Amino acid sequence: MSRTGFSYDFPHASLVSIGDLNPLDVRMIFERSAVHFDNNRAGTRAERTLDGATLINLFFENSTRTLASFEIAAKRLGAHVINFSAGSASISKGESLEDTALTLAAMRPDLQVVRHSAAGAAQYFARVTGVSTVNAGDGAHEHPTQALLDAFTLTRRWGEVGGRRILIVGDILHSRVARSNVALLNMLHADVRLCAPATLLPEDADRWGVQVFHDLDEALEGCDAVMALRIQRERMSGGLIPSDREYRALYGLDHARLERAAPGCLVMHPGPMNRGVEIDGALADDRERAVILEQVEAGVAVRMAVLELISSASPNQRYVSDSGDA
Amino acid sequence: MSRTGFSYDFPHASLVSIGDLNPLDVRMIFERSAVHFDNNRAGTRAERTLDGATLINLFFENSTRTLASFEIAAKRLGAHVINFSAGSASISKGESLEDTALTLAAMRPDLQVVRHSAAGAAQYFARVTGVSTVNAGDGAHEHPTQALLDAFTLTRRWGEVGGRRILIVGDILHSRVARSNVALLNMLHADVRLCAPATLLPEDADRWGVQVFHDLDEALEGCDAVMALRIQRERMSGGLIPSDREYRALYGLDHARLERAAPGCLVMHPGPMNRGVEIDGALADDRERAVILEQVEAGVAVRMAVLELISSASPNQRYVSDSGDA
Amino acid sequence: MSRTGFSYDFPHASLVSIGDLNPLDVRMIFERSAVHFDNNRAGTRAERTLDGATLINLFFENSTRTLASFEIAAKRLGAHVINFSAGSASISKGESLEDTALTLAAMRPDLQVVRHSAAGAAQYFARVTGVSTVNAGDGAHEHPTQALLDAFTLTRRWGEVGGRRILIVGDILHSRVARSNVALLNMLHADVRLCAPATLLPEDADRWGVQVFHDLDEALEGCDAVMALRIQRERMSGGLIPSDREYRALYGLDHARLERAAPGCLVMHPGPMNRGVEIDGALADDRERAVILEQVEAGVAVRMAVLELISSASPNQRYVSDSGDA
Repeated sequence: MSRTGFSYDFPHASLVSIGDLNPLDVRMIFERSAVHFDNNRAGTRAERTLDGATLINLFFENSTRTLASFEIAAKRLGAHVINFSAGSASISKGESLEDTALTLAAMRPDLQVVRHSAAGAAQYFARVTGVSTVNAGDGAHEHPTQALLDAFTLTRRWGEVGGRRILIVGDILHSRVARSNVALLNMLHADVRLCAPATLLPEDADRWGVQVFHDLDEALEGCDAVMALRIQRERMSGGLIPSDREYRALYGLDHARLERAAPGCLVMHPGPMNRGVEIDGALADDRERAVILEQVEAGVAVRMAVLELISSASPNQRYVSDSGDA
Repeated sequence: MSRTGFSYDFPHASLVSIGDLNPLDVRMIFERSAVHFDNNRAGTRAERTLDGATLINLFFENSTRTLASFEIAAKRLGAHVINFSAGSASISKGESLEDTALTLAAMRPDLQVVRHSAAGAAQYFARVTGVSTVNAGDGAHEHPTQALLDAFTLTRRWGEVGGRRILIVGDILHSRVARSNVALLNMLHADVRLCAPATLLPEDADRWGVQVFHDLDEALEGCDAVMALRIQRERMSGGLIPSDREYRALYGLDHARLERAAPGCLVMHPGPMNRGVEIDGALADDRERAVILEQVEAGVAVRMAVLELISSASPNQRYVSDSGDA
Repeated sequence: MSRTGFSYDFPHASLVSIGDLNPLDVRMIFERSAVHFDNNRAGTRAERTLDGATLINLFFENSTRTLASFEIAAKRLGAHVINFSAGSASISKGESLEDTALTLAAMRPDLQVVRHSAAGAAQYFARVTGVSTVNAGDGAHEHPTQALLDAFTLTRRWGEVGGRRILIVGDILHSRVARSNVALLNMLHADVRLCAPATLLPEDADRWGVQVFHDLDEALEGCDAVMALRIQRERMSGGLIPSDREYRALYGLDHARLERAAPGCLVMHPGPMNRGVEIDGALADDRERAVILEQVEAGVAVRMAVLELISSASPNQRYVSDSGDA
């Protein structure tokens, strides 16, 4: 019997990659997310399914919104939350990543949320510690709860995403958001398109099971939703991205451009936005089209669902700190 | 029926300015504050009137004591507290203030506490988000809970402040504490005096309904309480304030100077103190006169009352993130 | 009757120094620690013996692991935790240490945990505020919960530490961990040895009631446990400590060296480790010998016990902020 009392038998004690999930898992996550979304919006308190549990947020990269989203999600379910961020003392004292991971795990948290600039970091933490782990972004690799909240937002709007045409535009090469979204949207049988300059596309993008475009107007043709990725300005100095003005002209979303898309095409952005670069301010503020704040709102609900479900997975492989006894 | 179960019908979902309140509101706040003050001092746990609510502390200016005071107040009432401070990631990533505000609001907090260096910031956050907001200081404009805790401290001592002579001395020009205190003490029919060098007085001070002095000895004549403002040392380099030694000689409070005041004149300071500048150390430590620590203690109680009361206001205008549905 | 409902009558409202405790106090702490250790490992929620209490962590020195350990310990018992760390605003605004202490105490916390670079700081905070205080490290003076968690770890393994030979090796001169451990292990009738180069031994170490060695191989003879202290690299530039390579050759622990010790000799380290300097990586990872992660795990349990027990001490001398009333 699970700790959280669901009749579901969710089979994963961690969420590191969208590839860990099957469509039934996703449906379970979305069903719970819908309950939390409605409760959060109505101001109804959640059932304290994680009452007294300890969650550690281990953020080696700074992120206001993702950290806050996980913190609020966990606290609403009754968990205690301990935040560590980049520059914490032990890390700066030269401790190895494994020792930091094992030390925190020895404090017996029930859950940990890991963000790190290195691909594979969350997987590594999950493996060496045995603690239930959520990947909150590992380098350019994955950010599975972002993909889940994006797909949940669209599912809430449409009923389902299967058969819908969805475009992701921007710096695909460096984007964990894009990788996780492609994996999930493909699993849910959406018709996924990518659009980017050649310098910002991974070499193997043609094997991702998506259509690849370099021209935004072509790419937008008939789309039901379009997701603008955030431009990392530090890439500009590296020559991979043209100036703000050029980028906007070629890949920036605005009302005029959306004429090519399907009527009612939804506009998404994982935030924080560079208004006037990847997305026009007037479009971002158009509540008929932009579901950007709904994505944020969905984020808390989806994370509540994920934390509950991975906690309910049994047996939860726990880390054992010594061999001499129980 | 209100969420907190009071019979009061507190009419404000936010507290941005003392001007929002009428004398009955203030009496309600003080009645609840008195209950919390006594419970806190006795170590009696408060009723969890904000159980499961989410409060976000949004501090764009650093403040140890004010942040701690709101955090303790909210937690004692059972709320979850999420702290953001200056230099948080999204802000440094160039997100606009409005986008930061709307993003956090989309996580559906029940309450937010805002401190910002710009006058009007808290009002702006309240307006664009619709979240119940407490102004914890906006530039040189207002700091309403500071004024409430000051007046509550005096009311606890005296029964009421009406008819009492109260002097505020120091940098009135840049002080939100002074502005909020003048507004509240005038509303409560105190006899309010200000004392400052001409360079540190606002041009319109003669229209604030107070008596203005430049000489401290004259100003202290017959006072029942005197509040020393904190000197911001960065103003000295700007030439607005003379040296520490000169400032102390002209405007520093000490025992000798208080001879001019009424017997038992109370001494207040919003903290943190510059001992030996605006207030003499021996006077700050004189528990017969100085109520400085009592102000801090009152701060937690008053903030508990304010958070409870604005949460009980109904209907609580909530932010709506999309137009497409409920 | 105590607040926490123990039948114990623990006589200390603060824990500043091991010298405050007698062997019966230590037994009480270890009995409660054992309950918490087992519950934490099993994932069983603790009884909320500090429900609704307010604990302030006042860390003037950074420490990821110690702060996290106290934070988790307090939250598992139901306390609210407020964290202050070095560089907090009031401190940087030039407020005196006493004013910071008194201001926070005026917010009526039930408990405070103090870490500071000055010997005597925790004692000072306890005295001026009257708040129940735990010393989490004061300069080179004491770190009593570290000594308690070390001795508890050994007691769990052995039943008791009396008669066991225990070696502490490294920078004894600057180590509060060593000072607290010597005091506690002597009280518990262990046979305590120290080993360090002459430059890293306090002048009065011969009066500590221990055997002092300069040669590690001699010192290890017949030891049941050996504790390696962390090398502070900043001491190297000061000339007190030789290079990493030299230090390792003379004072580094590894498997070969442990041949001299008693069979099954346990290896301890307070963390964070410099692998390859004071301890060999393979030895640190040898779960048959190294109990380093068990120390971390014990740390949460011991701190839960200490916080409970000092809270149960009655009467808890509380700080009184004013003289004019109750």
